[in-house]
Amino acid sequence: MNRKILLDEKEMPTQWYNIVADMHNKPLPPLHPGTKQPLGPADLAPLFPMGLIEQEVSAERYIDIPQEVQDIYKIWRPSPLFRATGLEKLLDAPVKIYYKYEGQSPSGSHKPNTAVAQAYYNKKEGVKRITTETGAGQWGTALSFACAQFGIECDVYMVRISYDQKPYRKVMMNTFGANVYASPSDRTQAGRDILAKDPHSTGSLGIAISEAVELAAQDEHTKYALGSVLNHVLMHQTIIGQEAEKQLEYAGDFPDVIIAPLGGGSNLAGLAFPFLKHKLQGTKKDLRCVAVEPASCPKLTKGKFMYDFGDTAGYTPLLPMYTLGHNFKPAAIHAGGLRYHGASVLCSQLLKDEVLEAVAIQQLECFEAGVKFAKAEGIIAAPEATHAIAQVIREAEQAKKEGKQKTILFNLCGHGFVDMMAYQDYFAGKLSDHSFTDEELTHALGEIDALQP
Amino acid sequence: MNRKILLDEKEMPTQWYNIVADMHNKPLPPLHPGTKQPLGPADLAPLFPMGLIEQEVSAERYIDIPQEVQDIYKIWRPSPLFRATGLEKLLDAPVKIYYKYEGQSPSGSHKPNTAVAQAYYNKKEGVKRITTETGAGQWGTALSFACAQFGIECDVYMVRISYDQKPYRKVMMNTFGANVYASPSDRTQAGRDILAKDPHSTGSLGIAISEAVELAAQDEHTKYALGSVLNHVLMHQTIIGQEAEKQLEYAGDFPDVIIAPLGGGSNLAGLAFPFLKHKLQGTKKDLRCVAVEPASCPKLTKGKFMYDFGDTAGYTPLLPMYTLGHNFKPAAIHAGGLRYHGASVLCSQLLKDEVLEAVAIQQLECFEAGVKFAKAEGIIAAPEATHAIAQVIREAEQAKKEGKQKTILFNLCGHGFVDMMAYQDYFAGKLSDHSFTDEELTHALGEIDALQP
Repeated sequence: MNRKILLDEKEMPTQWYNIVADMHNKPLPPLHPGTKQPLGPADLAPLFPMGLIEQEVSAERYIDIPQEVQDIYKIWRPSPLFRATGLEKLLDAPVKIYYKYEGQSPSGSHKPNTAVAQAYYNKKEGVKRITTETGAGQWGTALSFACAQFGIECDVYMVRISYDQKPYRKVMMNTFGANVYASPSDRTQAGRDILAKDPHSTGSLGIAISEAVELAAQDEHTKYALGSVLNHVLMHQTIIGQEAEKQLEYAGDFPDVIIAPLGGGSNLAGLAFPFLKHKLQGTKKDLRCVAVEPASCPKLTKGKFMYDFGDTAGYTPLLPMYTLGHNFKPAAIHAGGLRYHGASVLCSQLLKDEVLEAVAIQQLECFEAGVKFAKAEGIIAAPEATHAIAQVIREAEQAKKEGKQKTILFNLCGHGFVDMMAYQDYFAGKLSDHSFTDEELTHALGEIDALQP
Repeated sequence: MNRKILLDEKEMPTQWYNIVADMHNKPLPPLHPGTKQPLGPADLAPLFPMGLIEQEVSAERYIDIPQEVQDIYKIWRPSPLFRATGLEKLLDAPVKIYYKYEGQSPSGSHKPNTAVAQAYYNKKEGVKRITTETGAGQWGTALSFACAQFGIECDVYMVRISYDQKPYRKVMMNTFGANVYASPSDRTQAGRDILAKDPHSTGSLGIAISEAVELAAQDEHTKYALGSVLNHVLMHQTIIGQEAEKQLEYAGDFPDVIIAPLGGGSNLAGLAFPFLKHKLQGTKKDLRCVAVEPASCPKLTKGKFMYDFGDTAGYTPLLPMYTLGHNFKPAAIHAGGLRYHGASVLCSQLLKDEVLEAVAIQQLECFEAGVKFAKAEGIIAAPEATHAIAQVIREAEQAKKEGKQKTILFNLCGHGFVDMMAYQDYFAGKLSDHSFTDEELTHALGEIDALQP
């Protein structure tokens, strides 16, 4: 039996899948925070090229992947689908476990799937520079690589505390040719205002977004890019699941349950949406899909489905999503990519409609799962990805208890080579679990009552 | 045109290639440092299992890869062969460039190819623990992973200065379950002696070897493992070149020149030996093979072919090799894997016989090449691997000047995700080139005159 199933470049999907076409309840529209009226494409034009705005509002089932984007995808795509024979042996449960591995991309995660597409559409419309924010640096690295492919300048506003504490990611972005600025910076009004109040501010993702958006809005040749949450971003990731479906066909298999971590929702969407098509169309009604969130940022399991801002500062449109409130402060855990207060509109609607399930897991269980996985499979997973592994182990144990056969597919969305300090802290006993009191959760949610239409 | 050529697991080679069978001048024997007499298998038995000793002295052309080793290889093998279309476009020269990429292995380099084999033969003979040394950590990581596959304990003695300054690699080894000790340690007589003289010793590869060897020699259930230099280690790597030959056949191509960095010689041997078979057998007489060394450790271009110790402390047998003298202190460059005073016996003999060529390149040229490569190909190379890229660029420029078509194959032996501080120092202008005076080179070489038989 093969340990991995590979596809030839000629078998790479040539279209992205847009789940909106198959959703029973279509996503609610984004609203203007002032008027509370639905936003139109023109409202987004200062920030995004029209090619992406059209995708954002599209209800077409399939959208062609431009040849130029396909050519760059082929640097690392199709990505391998692994049969987790080592982990299966260790768990000794009646399960078959498959995982799609996105860690072989230029930035080491699934993020370049959308970064390359976004850079392409910007280039096509003459954009000279793209601004973005990055926390731990995964998204910034992906966009830096993508911009290098099209000769676009890339300015990344990196949260100051990560800029200082996680220099590896910054250097990766520099290597791909991007300019990386610690945020808050003195390059924007938003940054200067923060620094005037607090010269030693360590920054936040919300501040970094404000800086990147401000610069894009001011200059017609500069646009802004986001690495998750938006519909077009999730759609670009669906190449993952389409490949996986073809690979599982070669293995003669189809999953009973699909598992992925959820930060904004793009890696879950990427793997699961092409499979959920069959559930929504009624041919695979029993297919389960589990989104795994950290217990320290439990928007899916303890948040509410409400309109909220996508950023902390309140500059974005209002989006209908499961949220903890945009002022919610998640606990400081190592899976930085999962520390986001809300879930994407598409994932939120699907969770509300019970197409998705959600579970929250503490970080100690996740790291324990990650260490088991590394020894059994030879891949050190990113802290975000260990959340999926932890749930896989739970599912396997459940199957063993029930004596039921199960086929599990999960998204190993990135490697952990640049996150080894997280594992070090785990081994050193410096990490702890964290749960929020109901009062803490209620407070940040209460603040957004006034935003509802 | 495909950007990469993949092989199915079923196409993975099932034998290692032993170049000794085809060498016109066979390698000279290792000598006992006291008697200056050739060593026999029994002399090596305290340190290595007999399965590996047999391979070390074998002259068989092919040796079967055990099924258990093949099964673990399949976690990451066959490795991809890339056509460097991005780099070709950038260089605009009449060259086709291919590279074999070993960075998708569990430790991120070619080292697990031999680590898994070595762990297997140790396990087969009942060994409970393997000791080894590691400098920057690539080899230690590979052996940690390999030992985890067979349930063998792994004790890694890591040079103190790397242990303190490069914590990522240490944590990777811990994640795979190894015990990592800063060397010099108080766990060995060798370590205690050093610490008694210098409590703040930052260690050296030579000291770490002494500690690992001492522990293996004392305990019948403990053996020692080495990550390069020895014949069996180089042979285990030949799966790389055998795969590459098959992949190039699919592309309808054969290289005019093969390029690899050379530290001890295992990654060059791995890629090149299966191709050099044809040169030695007379069917591809014009095939060139270039070993690239750092100018800061120029054993191939400025060293002498003499008997010398494999380690700094003088505990190993005497080996016939190109060497700068075992007390030579290489300049502090970032390609730690290339800072070794000697070259493996097999590579040395082939260089002496003009089957190989050698070139020394300064590190600034290498990092410049690495940055170009990252932008063009989307892979950030390990500092060691950038030496090959720099030579590829030289060959392409030469071909352009001469107006001659050329097909180049090189070994991208590892990624640089855990070496980003090297790139940071490069961008910050902290790196410099280094050349040695003739006097500096003569001194360390003069010390080994007395060792000659």
